[in-house]
Amino acid sequence: MSGSKCTRLSGALVKQVLESVDSVLFDCDGVIWRGDQAIPGAAEVINLLKKNGKKVFFVTNNSSKTRKMYADKMTTLGFNVTEDEVFGTAYCSAMYLKNVCKLEGKVYLIGSNAMKQELEAVGIQQTGVGPDHISGKQIDWANVPLDPEVKAVVVGFDEHFSYMKLNRALQYLTQQDCLFVGTNRDTRLPLEGGKAVPGTGCLLQAVETAAQRQAQTVGKPNHFMFDCVASQFGVDRERCLMVGDRLDTDIMLGSNCGLKTLLTLTGVSTVADAEAHQKSGCAEKQGMVPDYYVESIADLLPALQG
Amino acid sequence: MSGSKCTRLSGALVKQVLESVDSVLFDCDGVIWRGDQAIPGAAEVINLLKKNGKKVFFVTNNSSKTRKMYADKMTTLGFNVTEDEVFGTAYCSAMYLKNVCKLEGKVYLIGSNAMKQELEAVGIQQTGVGPDHISGKQIDWANVPLDPEVKAVVVGFDEHFSYMKLNRALQYLTQQDCLFVGTNRDTRLPLEGGKAVPGTGCLLQAVETAAQRQAQTVGKPNHFMFDCVASQFGVDRERCLMVGDRLDTDIMLGSNCGLKTLLTLTGVSTVADAEAHQKSGCAEKQGMVPDYYVESIADLLPALQG
Repeated sequence: MSGSKCTRLSGALVKQVLESVDSVLFDCDGVIWRGDQAIPGAAEVINLLKKNGKKVFFVTNNSSKTRKMYADKMTTLGFNVTEDEVFGTAYCSAMYLKNVCKLEGKVYLIGSNAMKQELEAVGIQQTGVGPDHISGKQIDWANVPLDPEVKAVVVGFDEHFSYMKLNRALQYLTQQDCLFVGTNRDTRLPLEGGKAVPGTGCLLQAVETAAQRQAQTVGKPNHFMFDCVASQFGVDRERCLMVGDRLDTDIMLGSNCGLKTLLTLTGVSTVADAEAHQKSGCAEKQGMVPDYYVESIADLLPALQG
Repeated sequence: MSGSKCTRLSGALVKQVLESVDSVLFDCDGVIWRGDQAIPGAAEVINLLKKNGKKVFFVTNNSSKTRKMYADKMTTLGFNVTEDEVFGTAYCSAMYLKNVCKLEGKVYLIGSNAMKQELEAVGIQQTGVGPDHISGKQIDWANVPLDPEVKAVVVGFDEHFSYMKLNRALQYLTQQDCLFVGTNRDTRLPLEGGKAVPGTGCLLQAVETAAQRQAQTVGKPNHFMFDCVASQFGVDRERCLMVGDRLDTDIMLGSNCGLKTLLTLTGVSTVADAEAHQKSGCAEKQGMVPDYYVESIADLLPALQG
């Protein structure tokens, strides 16, 4: 294979690249589906990869679903996938708090019910999930009762995010020994038709600004997501391909972990974005240049069927 | 007067400095009051300054009150103050939108009822004030009905800040011609006993992160706050003193506008903070070094009574 980067993956090169790897990591949104619709051909690609003996995993920064919810969605869309092949930030944050932080105590959670479930599954209790409306005056907010067992603030996607939650997080985080963890820094969730809604990165920025502290984030491009997969399945990083639609998260994760990287154009980033990073001459941005790109992961189909 | 900065203002120097100015601008919180309590001696200082023929003005980044609400609070605390001497960011934002932006259209307001009132007082309609809870799914949020008359998003302090408000702001701000204005960037509102609650800067950061755009901010240290005073009262900046408790807003505003500056230690910043800026050798940070400091503005009393 040539040493040049950002090569279009087609023809004989597809087979060559697939033969060079044992494991393939897929981002989900913008890669295997968009919203509730599978990318045409994606299920066939995943199922054939597995049939051909590849290990396939899913690594997503989206914190709004448990592993089981992802597996159920995938099954509905025709993917032959099991729960333990899915690594979302709801699950990975729970693993991070338990195994890396060795958290002993509760979490103040700005996040979803799915995050609550993944935390509870590893024995971590939380407080905070659900709506939290404001009442009283500033001095009441500053003196809001805190749960003395809370030893970490965790910020994930939360459609009930509110000023009161921001305030509660600030009050917990002024305690020096309170851990501060975010699921990811994605600023927007892209939807159909070029639309988008605010992502977890916006909520995390607000909490970081209030607390005057930086959160440790678990999601891509942090290597922890890959470590999580590798520690459970013994992945050889030199024979592993990361497939994603975002240069700043997916491709950067691959670069950070020494994986081969493939950009698919069914989501956020474009080839022009990748080329701009390549030409920038900035070392950090080189990590956002993929080895290869495809229009869609369906472009892998002929090599898998042949 | 000596050319050195960050000099303690006491003894004969107080009279000398006061004689060198015709106008005195005061920040409010941490300077003339803390919460609902006047700083001891503050009312006497203000009233004597005015009795001695000085013009006195109040410039506050706090957007939660109208000019009238401030004047009423001041009167209750014993200050001899009229509404037109008060320049809060609720009022100044309305002036900015009307006179600088020449806004023709409505505002989507993340802010208080006071901001709504100040906007309406200059003939600008708003939508958005009050609670805005979430319902539906992501695609519903992305397609939330927008008011076609809205031509600006304005972010001030809003205890009802929510994910849905953040989302609405994002949807408006994806329209290229939509203006984006923030009242101020203060990250915290300090309260009694070292406590604090999240400030407007946190909310603004969240909206800026979602919109991938920078807001124009009206409040200190932006010179617009001073321009507002100067355009209405003909203030000579060389004979004007800015008194505040924050280096990054109050003292910086004074430096930006060529005013004399006085730090009072009854609020956020310390002499050590000022000295650190002075020693930094960083040009931008020199603007945060005050000419003088006092323990409290009550230190001005003897010179005014004498």
